[in-house]
Amino acid sequence: MNYRMIKNVLGWILWFEAIFMLVPSVTAMVYGEWRELLFFFATMAICALLGLLCRLGKPRDTVLYAREGFVIVSLSWIVLSLFGALPLFLSGWIPNYIDALFETVSGFTTTGSSILASVEELPRSILMWRSFTHWVGGMGVLVFIMAFVPLSGGQNMHIMRAESPGPDVSKLVPRVRTTALILYAIYLGMTFIMFILLLLGDMTAFEALNTSFATAGTGGFGFCNDSMASFSPYVQIVVTVFMLLFSVNFTCYYMLFLGRVKEVLNTELRAFAIIVAGAVTVVTLNIVSMYQNVGDALRHAAFSVATVISTTGFATENFDLWPELSRTVLVLLMFVGACAGSTGGGIKISRIQILIRGAFNSIGDLIHPRRVKKVMLDKRPVDRTVVQATNVYMVWYLLIFVASVILISFDDHDLVTNFTAVAATLNNVGPGLGKVGPTGNFAFFSIPSKLVLIFDMLAGRLELFPMLVLFAPSTWKR
Amino acid sequence: MNYRMIKNVLGWILWFEAIFMLVPSVTAMVYGEWRELLFFFATMAICALLGLLCRLGKPRDTVLYAREGFVIVSLSWIVLSLFGALPLFLSGWIPNYIDALFETVSGFTTTGSSILASVEELPRSILMWRSFTHWVGGMGVLVFIMAFVPLSGGQNMHIMRAESPGPDVSKLVPRVRTTALILYAIYLGMTFIMFILLLLGDMTAFEALNTSFATAGTGGFGFCNDSMASFSPYVQIVVTVFMLLFSVNFTCYYMLFLGRVKEVLNTELRAFAIIVAGAVTVVTLNIVSMYQNVGDALRHAAFSVATVISTTGFATENFDLWPELSRTVLVLLMFVGACAGSTGGGIKISRIQILIRGAFNSIGDLIHPRRVKKVMLDKRPVDRTVVQATNVYMVWYLLIFVASVILISFDDHDLVTNFTAVAATLNNVGPGLGKVGPTGNFAFFSIPSKLVLIFDMLAGRLELFPMLVLFAPSTWKR
Repeated sequence: MNYRMIKNVLGWILWFEAIFMLVPSVTAMVYGEWRELLFFFATMAICALLGLLCRLGKPRDTVLYAREGFVIVSLSWIVLSLFGALPLFLSGWIPNYIDALFETVSGFTTTGSSILASVEELPRSILMWRSFTHWVGGMGVLVFIMAFVPLSGGQNMHIMRAESPGPDVSKLVPRVRTTALILYAIYLGMTFIMFILLLLGDMTAFEALNTSFATAGTGGFGFCNDSMASFSPYVQIVVTVFMLLFSVNFTCYYMLFLGRVKEVLNTELRAFAIIVAGAVTVVTLNIVSMYQNVGDALRHAAFSVATVISTTGFATENFDLWPELSRTVLVLLMFVGACAGSTGGGIKISRIQILIRGAFNSIGDLIHPRRVKKVMLDKRPVDRTVVQATNVYMVWYLLIFVASVILISFDDHDLVTNFTAVAATLNNVGPGLGKVGPTGNFAFFSIPSKLVLIFDMLAGRLELFPMLVLFAPSTWKR
Repeated sequence: MNYRMIKNVLGWILWFEAIFMLVPSVTAMVYGEWRELLFFFATMAICALLGLLCRLGKPRDTVLYAREGFVIVSLSWIVLSLFGALPLFLSGWIPNYIDALFETVSGFTTTGSSILASVEELPRSILMWRSFTHWVGGMGVLVFIMAFVPLSGGQNMHIMRAESPGPDVSKLVPRVRTTALILYAIYLGMTFIMFILLLLGDMTAFEALNTSFATAGTGGFGFCNDSMASFSPYVQIVVTVFMLLFSVNFTCYYMLFLGRVKEVLNTELRAFAIIVAGAVTVVTLNIVSMYQNVGDALRHAAFSVATVISTTGFATENFDLWPELSRTVLVLLMFVGACAGSTGGGIKISRIQILIRGAFNSIGDLIHPRRVKKVMLDKRPVDRTVVQATNVYMVWYLLIFVASVILISFDDHDLVTNFTAVAATLNNVGPGLGKVGPTGNFAFFSIPSKLVLIFDMLAGRLELFPMLVLFAPSTWKR
C-alpha cells in the first residue's frame, strides 16, 4: 500500500475542501452572517493546515494500483465529510457531531436525507453549504481535483473508475484529465442554464442557486420546510425536467455536442425514457381522483417519479399518502435509479439491463444447452468480467441492504420505515416512506443506526466496492 | 419437443393422483363422510380415465432433453393441482374454483397459505387431503413416480434435476430410480417416527397423521384455527424438532446411515445450525419480557424460527405482534429457507453460501487482480456453471418478486401485506405479516392477484427455471 501517495491525495482533498467553503463564506458575507463566517473560516484554516502537513514530503513512488484507487476514493469521501461537518457542528446549528456528519455525508453523497425537522431558521450560508456539497458530490470530488491538478503519472483511471457510477466507465477522450474537464464543463453549463431558468421564474438568486446545486447533484436538500411544494408550477416543471436531465449519462451530452446523435439514443437512455413515461402514466391514473384536474395530477406524478428515479429527493406532495400502487412504483424506482455516468444514484439502468439480459439468455441456454450467447448492449457484447462484476454487485447490494435493515431494526421502528430508510440512503434518494417519508426526517434514529445509514450513503454513492475494499482486512496486509 | 413422451408422463401423473386420493377416501370411509367420498371417487374416475387416454399410444421416441425435463415437471405440477382442486370445489367446501386451486397449489408446493378463514368445520377427509398434498409435494411427485415406474430410458436425471431443490443435485447412487427409492424410504421412515412421537403426546391418530404429513412436507396446513397454539408444549417441541429435521439435506441422513459422519456435518448443515441457534437466541431475548418465563419465550421463539426457516408455516403465537427486531429476523429467514435437497423452500442455505463466498472472493480479486480463486464448498471448488446459475437464479428471483409485488399492489392493500404475501408464497412459507399474518388468510386478494400468487408458489417450489422454461416462447419453437 502506497501510504505516502494516499496521504498526498488526502492533502489535496483538504485544500479543495477549504476552497469549496469559499462559496458559503461569500454567502455569509453577502447576508452579514458574521458568526457563521467565523466558523467557516476556522474550518478552512484547519483544512489548509492539515492539508499542508499531509502534502509535506513528496512521495518517491507515484504508482497507484487498483486497491490504492479504491482506498483513496473511500478515504477522500470520509475525510471530506468529517471536516465538512465542522461548520454545522461548531456553529451549534446541529449540536450533535454525528448528526452534523450524517447531514454532511447526506450532502456529499447527494442523498438529501436530513436530520433537521425545520430548515427555514438556518442561516443562508449554512443552507448554501448543504446545497453546494450536493453539487461537489454529484460529479465526484476526485474527478474535480483531477480536472485541475495532475495527481500522479498516468494511473488516474483507477481513481476515476472507483468514483464514477455505473457498471463500466469509459473515457470520453484518451486523457483522464481532459475527460474530467469535459465532464465538469457540461455539468457547470447545465447548472448555469437551470439557474437562469429559475431566475426567470419567481425565485430569488439565492433560491435559484440553491435549487440548481441540489438538482444538478440530484441531492435534494431544500431551504423550505415543504421542499418544493410552495413554488409555482413553472418552477416545479423546470426542476422536474432538470432532475431527469441530470439522470442521463453525461457521455450522451458530449456525443450530442459532437453531433453523434446515434450514440446519444443508446439502449440505456431509451429504457430510462420508457420507464419514466410508464411510471408517470401509471401514477397519474392512480392519483387522478385525488386532484382537481388531470394537469395537477400529471405534474405531481411527473415530479415524484423524477425525484425518485433521479434519486434527488425533492417533494411537492407527500406521496406517502398516495394509493398503494403509486407507493409501490415509487419505492421500486428508488432501487432502479438513474443512468450510469450521471449524477443520480440507485442500482442504475444499464446494470439492471445487463442483469435482465443475462437472465433471459440463461433461459435460452437451458432450452438450447449447446448455444453460447453473450449479453449484448448497444449491439456490442458486454465483457464477461463486467457481467460477473454486475452479479457480484447485486449480491453485495443485497447483503448490505439486509444487514442494514437488521441493524437499524434494533431501534424498534416499523418495518416500512426501516426498509425504506435503508433504501433511501443506500440508493442516495433522500426521503422514504413512513416516519422517513417526505414530511419526516431521520433525527429519531439512534447513533448506531445513524452510523449504519452513513455507511449506506457512502457505499451507495461510491457503488459499494471502494467502501468494501476499505474495510477488507486483506487490503491492509503486506 | 417430444409431445408424446410429455403426454405419457402426464398420464402417469393422473393415475398417481387417483392413487393419492385413496388416502382421503379411506379417511372419508372411517368417519362416514359419504358425500365427500362421492366427490373423491368422481375425481379419481376422471383422473383414471384421462390418464388412460394420455397413456394410449406408446411414444416411439423416449429420448428426453433438458427442456422436456423442465416442461414435464412444470406441467405435471400444474395438472396435479388442477385435478387435485376438484374435490374441494365439487364438494362445495370451497365454492370458487380459483380459491380451490390456490388451496391445492398451496398444498402440493408445501406453502401452506390458505384462503380459508376457518378450517375447523371442514370434513376430516378434506383436511386429510390438504395435509397429504403437502407430503406428496414435499419430496416431489415425479421423484415418487420414478421410484416405482421406469419412466424412460436413462434420462430421468433431467426430470430429477428440474424437480429437486438446491443449486446442484447429486445422485446418491448411480441409478436415478434407486436414489428416488432411498429418498422416499428416509422420508417415510422419518414421517412414521414423528407420527409415533405425536401419538405418545395428547394427539389422536387423525391429528398425528395430519400433523406428520404437513410437517414432513414442511407445508403447514393445520386442522385447528389457531394452528398449533392449543397443543401441549410436548407436541410443540416435537413439531419444532421435526420441522428442523425435514429442513436438512436428505443426503445427510443417507450418509449417517452409511456411517460417513464427516460428510453429514457439511458446510451447509453447520451454517443452518448456526443460523437457527443465532436467530432463536436473538428472538428469545427480544420477546422474553412478553412471556411469564424464559422457557415459554424460548419455546415460542424456537417454534417460530423453525416454522419460518423450514418454510412450514405452523404457528403457536402471532409473531406479527412481536417487536420489530424479531419480525425483521423472521421475515429475513423466510428468504433464507432450508438446506438444499430437503423438503423446505426458500432460497436455500447452500445457494446463499455460494453467493456470499463468490462476493467475498470478488473483493479479494479487486485487491489482487491477478489472483484466481474459485468458490469453495466443503473443500471442493464449486463448478463455475453452478456459480453462474446461482447468480442467474437470484436475478430471476428478484424479477419475479418485484413483478409480483407490483401486480398484487393493484388491489391496494398495504405494502407490508403485499411484500410478505409474495415472500410467503414464493418461498413456500405460508403466512406473512399484516393481513396475511399467522391469524389472517389470503381470501381477500382479487382473482388476478391469486393467480399471481399461484404462479409464485409453483415457481418457488420448482426453483423458478421449470416455470420460466414453460413460459419461454423459444421452448415451443421447432
